[in-house]
Amino acid sequence: MDSVDTRVRVRYAETDQMGVVYHANFLIWMEVGRVEYWRAAGLRYRDMEKDDGILLVVAEVNCRYLSPAVYDEEVIIRTSIAEASPRLIRFEYELLAAEGGRRLATGYTKHVFCGTDRRPTKVPRKYYAKLGIGAPAT
Amino acid sequence: MDSVDTRVRVRYAETDQMGVVYHANFLIWMEVGRVEYWRAAGLRYRDMEKDDGILLVVAEVNCRYLSPAVYDEEVIIRTSIAEASPRLIRFEYELLAAEGGRRLATGYTKHVFCGTDRRPTKVPRKYYAKLGIGAPAT
Amino acid sequence: MDSVDTRVRVRYAETDQMGVVYHANFLIWMEVGRVEYWRAAGLRYRDMEKDDGILLVVAEVNCRYLSPAVYDEEVIIRTSIAEASPRLIRFEYELLAAEGGRRLATGYTKHVFCGTDRRPTKVPRKYYAKLGIGAPAT
Amino acid sequence: MDSVDTRVRVRYAETDQMGVVYHANFLIWMEVGRVEYWRAAGLRYRDMEKDDGILLVVAEVNCRYLSPAVYDEEVIIRTSIAEASPRLIRFEYELLAAEGGRRLATGYTKHVFCGTDRRPTKVPRKYYAKLGIGAPAT
Repeated sequence: MDSVDTRVRVRYAETDQMGVVYHANFLIWMEVGRVEYWRAAGLRYRDMEKDDGILLVVAEVNCRYLSPAVYDEEVIIRTSIAEASPRLIRFEYELLAAEGGRRLATGYTKHVFCGTDRRPTKVPRKYYAKLGIGAPAT
Repeated sequence: MDSVDTRVRVRYAETDQMGVVYHANFLIWMEVGRVEYWRAAGLRYRDMEKDDGILLVVAEVNCRYLSPAVYDEEVIIRTSIAEASPRLIRFEYELLAAEGGRRLATGYTKHVFCGTDRRPTKVPRKYYAKLGIGAPAT
Repeated sequence: MDSVDTRVRVRYAETDQMGVVYHANFLIWMEVGRVEYWRAAGLRYRDMEKDDGILLVVAEVNCRYLSPAVYDEEVIIRTSIAEASPRLIRFEYELLAAEGGRRLATGYTKHVFCGTDRRPTKVPRKYYAKLGIGAPAT
Repeated sequence: MDSVDTRVRVRYAETDQMGVVYHANFLIWMEVGRVEYWRAAGLRYRDMEKDDGILLVVAEVNCRYLSPAVYDEEVIIRTSIAEASPRLIRFEYELLAAEGGRRLATGYTKHVFCGTDRRPTKVPRKYYAKLGIGAPAT
């Protein structure tokens, strides 16, 4: 699957006294982006957690800030999967202003599939195709 | 027990573009205040939740804002128990600037003791004295 | 104007270890609701702040929690103006689960119109009709 | 100056439904760490922003998560400056459980000194020594 676009509108709560969005909120938007990526792939992150007892534990985050996001503007979170194996998944993100298309940030998050005991595990096989796992390297 | 004072320093993340603390953060500080009240009473909220399976579910919050809190200042959260029964507890709060003593806000939170199934229950008897429950009405 | 409905989807970041939405986030949703109320009335809160130098300073918040909101569910924020004068405005909110219509919470917020110096002021006359100010009491 | 240790206690608000601290909060703790680094160096971040009109704009963040932080535990934020020039500064962080010393995360943040117009600028010379800028490369 290609990238999936999700939109959020900047909340007042997300700004700080510099008059722009506080940087940690970009990570929350990335989370919104990957949940919607999941949904677009026909999956529901909530169900994977609840029904299959699989947690997507965050192992690393990175974000480069290019232009500030301001209150009340709409932000596009462009999410794609850069790498996926039965044990790990890496999402990439591009954040854009919906109006004008200004690039706000780029980043990635790495996750480990874990059981409810938070120990690394393999994601069930039924998820392979939808997450692009195991596509033959050509 | 009388009121218990706890101090927090305003984080940049807690400000908004008005240049002051975003109002919802006062509720988080109230939470910090009541956890420290708990600790001062010789209790640990974490243990009650973990060991006794008792959750303190928030039923109502109220906050009146008197003066804005600003970045990097220290805030005193003065917490007391206004009412307590085996089923309910009501905390009251006064928030003050540590420097100068300016009153920032007053408020209260009402809580229902619940089991891990989130159904109302009675708090175990061992908590009575420390929470001031069951003091004879005179 | 009648009430305005806005929808938000619960973010993972908004949950806490009780497995439901942390209570302070309801206040952030109320903010989302009133900004969209503003927009539905043909106003833009951002412009009022930027162009007219009018801040809507929060004076009081109240929220009663009726049923927990859970991760990934859609929440309807039903917002209306309960009172409005040139100096003050009071919003009322009802929060509902989009699916099934379960009532999650009710609440209100009181605001004072202030200048950029945070001193109380009167909202410009051009806002009266849209905010329902000055409608003759009948 | 060597690294500076700051302590925070995990707030209920900072946990998520996995029962551990939501990952974006580590970035907020890093902010707490660098403000206290500033203070330990005899500087006050607030004053630099207010008096000198210098903003420390975040250009990049990175965090690797090693072990989850849990509710009510105390976390040590060990902050140091890895690089500093009149235009840029890079902080490094190590997050540790105060009890037992378990490593929770490591990370860094890069910042650009900007004027109040958010354009890159040079930090005033009076900050050089305290931030370790301009130490001769040997």
